[in-house]
Amino acid sequence: MQEKQHIASAFDRDLESIQALILKMGGMVEAAILDGAQSLADRDVEAAEKVRRGDKAIDALEEQLNEEAARVIAIRAPVSRDLRVILSVLRLAASLERIGDYAKNMAKRTSVLAELHPIEGSDAALKRMAREVQNMLRDTLDAFVNRDPGLAHEVLLRDQEVDQMYNALFREFLTHMMEDPRAITACMHLHFIAKNIERMGDLVTNMAEQVIYLATGKMPDEDRPKGDTTAYVAQPE
Amino acid sequence: MQEKQHIASAFDRDLESIQALILKMGGMVEAAILDGAQSLADRDVEAAEKVRRGDKAIDALEEQLNEEAARVIAIRAPVSRDLRVILSVLRLAASLERIGDYAKNMAKRTSVLAELHPIEGSDAALKRMAREVQNMLRDTLDAFVNRDPGLAHEVLLRDQEVDQMYNALFREFLTHMMEDPRAITACMHLHFIAKNIERMGDLVTNMAEQVIYLATGKMPDEDRPKGDTTAYVAQPE
Repeated sequence: MQEKQHIASAFDRDLESIQALILKMGGMVEAAILDGAQSLADRDVEAAEKVRRGDKAIDALEEQLNEEAARVIAIRAPVSRDLRVILSVLRLAASLERIGDYAKNMAKRTSVLAELHPIEGSDAALKRMAREVQNMLRDTLDAFVNRDPGLAHEVLLRDQEVDQMYNALFREFLTHMMEDPRAITACMHLHFIAKNIERMGDLVTNMAEQVIYLATGKMPDEDRPKGDTTAYVAQPE
Repeated sequence: MQEKQHIASAFDRDLESIQALILKMGGMVEAAILDGAQSLADRDVEAAEKVRRGDKAIDALEEQLNEEAARVIAIRAPVSRDLRVILSVLRLAASLERIGDYAKNMAKRTSVLAELHPIEGSDAALKRMAREVQNMLRDTLDAFVNRDPGLAHEVLLRDQEVDQMYNALFREFLTHMMEDPRAITACMHLHFIAKNIERMGDLVTNMAEQVIYLATGKMPDEDRPKGDTTAYVAQPE
């Protein structure tokens, strides 16, 4: 009996160290989102370069998490709930890695946008989107640590706001491009950035669903409304 | 000794059923890529709708794979190599699910593109890209089944061709839009599709890297050349 107790707490310690890694990774990704958006708004190529370089550390942390998780599974042979936690953490880490990639891509486009004429209003809108996604990510990580499905559910709903911001920007960019062909290149890059932030929101949403699954054992209903409707836009309104 | 033999072959059977699932999923994703590109080229809204609906089955298969993998880990408690195989399969499944999402998105845009004027040459180019990605995926799955790192390495190299096709299209779309503002909306959607196919290629590349890791125990060198350079394009040439 005492032996079992000992094994259980060793697993708990392992799990805590894995959770600490995911929180560290999450913090780095949050910073990448904000710093990426800020360096874009400032057209600060040097700050953007720092975000790009920082992505390597995020990738390395995901590798470390994968190895650590494999090690824990191998030596502790967890089952049921414990195993579910570890497999969920791996999926969270994979989503974080992808969000980091999108932040890197945003930073990458800063250098070319620095050479082009700014598009009125777009920087502020992109920064708002990025800040909202970063807030959603922070709350998702909190919901994960506290196994709080309610907070994770709120995140799911908030993703619609991000989608709406993206829809508005998509139409704005189309209008800009039609009015002024010289704005086309800048709008294409800005539009990509907007889409990438919208995708970050989708990834955070996936993470929040994982957290709900982890806390309740069930995935949330699939039929929550989809916010990005631009795939159907034939003309800007 | 006999007991151990028995356990080992039970694991092998489990592993085979997991591999069969991933191959089934891979086949469905290959079909989604080809059918998505074909229905786009034909502006066949009904065929596109079928691709969209088919994505649910791909998602369900990923869920099934996750559950099956968790079950096998729980009852067989695999270590070292066996565990690595199962964790790799989960990552392959996650990549397949994302490729399926991109195919679904391509199909989604078919209905709006059916209402717009076609952009000369773009359909054939997108079909070529899609076919190349599907070939890469088929070879990656073959390399997985046969644990063939050589074939997986070839896939890594071929992704550059996909990137180059995307670069050429990106410049073409910019030129079209500047020459004719009425082409802007169609070009925006087509460009998204091109970018999504390019991302499918990146995901297949990630899968090929996983296969190499699985076959050799090492990830391939990180510094293979990146083919998509459009983040730096300020003006079409």
